[in-house]
Amino acid sequence: MSTLTPGRIRHTVSFTLVHEPGSEQERDFLAAQAALGAIPGVEAYELLREVSPKNDFRFGCSMEFADTAAYQAYNEHPDHVAFVNDRWQAEVQDFLEIDYEPLD
Amino acid sequence: MSTLTPGRIRHTVSFTLVHEPGSEQERDFLAAQAALGAIPGVEAYELLREVSPKNDFRFGCSMEFADTAAYQAYNEHPDHVAFVNDRWQAEVQDFLEIDYEPLD
Repeated sequence: MSTLTPGRIRHTVSFTLVHEPGSEQERDFLAAQAALGAIPGVEAYELLREVSPKNDFRFGCSMEFADTAAYQAYNEHPDHVAFVNDRWQAEVQDFLEIDYEPLD
Repeated sequence: MSTLTPGRIRHTVSFTLVHEPGSEQERDFLAAQAALGAIPGVEAYELLREVSPKNDFRFGCSMEFADTAAYQAYNEHPDHVAFVNDRWQAEVQDFLEIDYEPLD
């Protein structure tokens, strides 16, 4: 039913930016966001464009972790903490985190 | 950057049900939801448990389409239309659709 095997977690965040669409600031933020995919423990990292007319988010990222310890290590990783403090809090207008595990 | 190749679409829906957690009604709805994965054109179907403490959704489904025509065919497929009319509208308390395409 899922490619997520038991114990694994898929972490997703949908977001909009304060920047003008297509701007250099937007590109720079997305590049910094994409760099999070290099943090140890991050698997299947994807930076995506949100296209549903039924919500206002414009981008998304998706990543998987082998277990909650890997997820926690990512959250606490200095590169992630710095990104949240230095970029996310100033440049993200709205966001929603949605995390999935296998159903059973 | 993404497993989604250009032109492909990942359609996701996060949702909560009116049913008691663990109830027979919940199981029955989820089984009907899972059956949508058999509709022609639906790829990489997943039925998932939403686990983030930062939102109130309890389940999710994710599927991919080769292109917008396949997505539209799914939306208009009699099995999908019947599911929305007969089950979704009565048994889903809240939901959010988020659709992704490759960023570039």
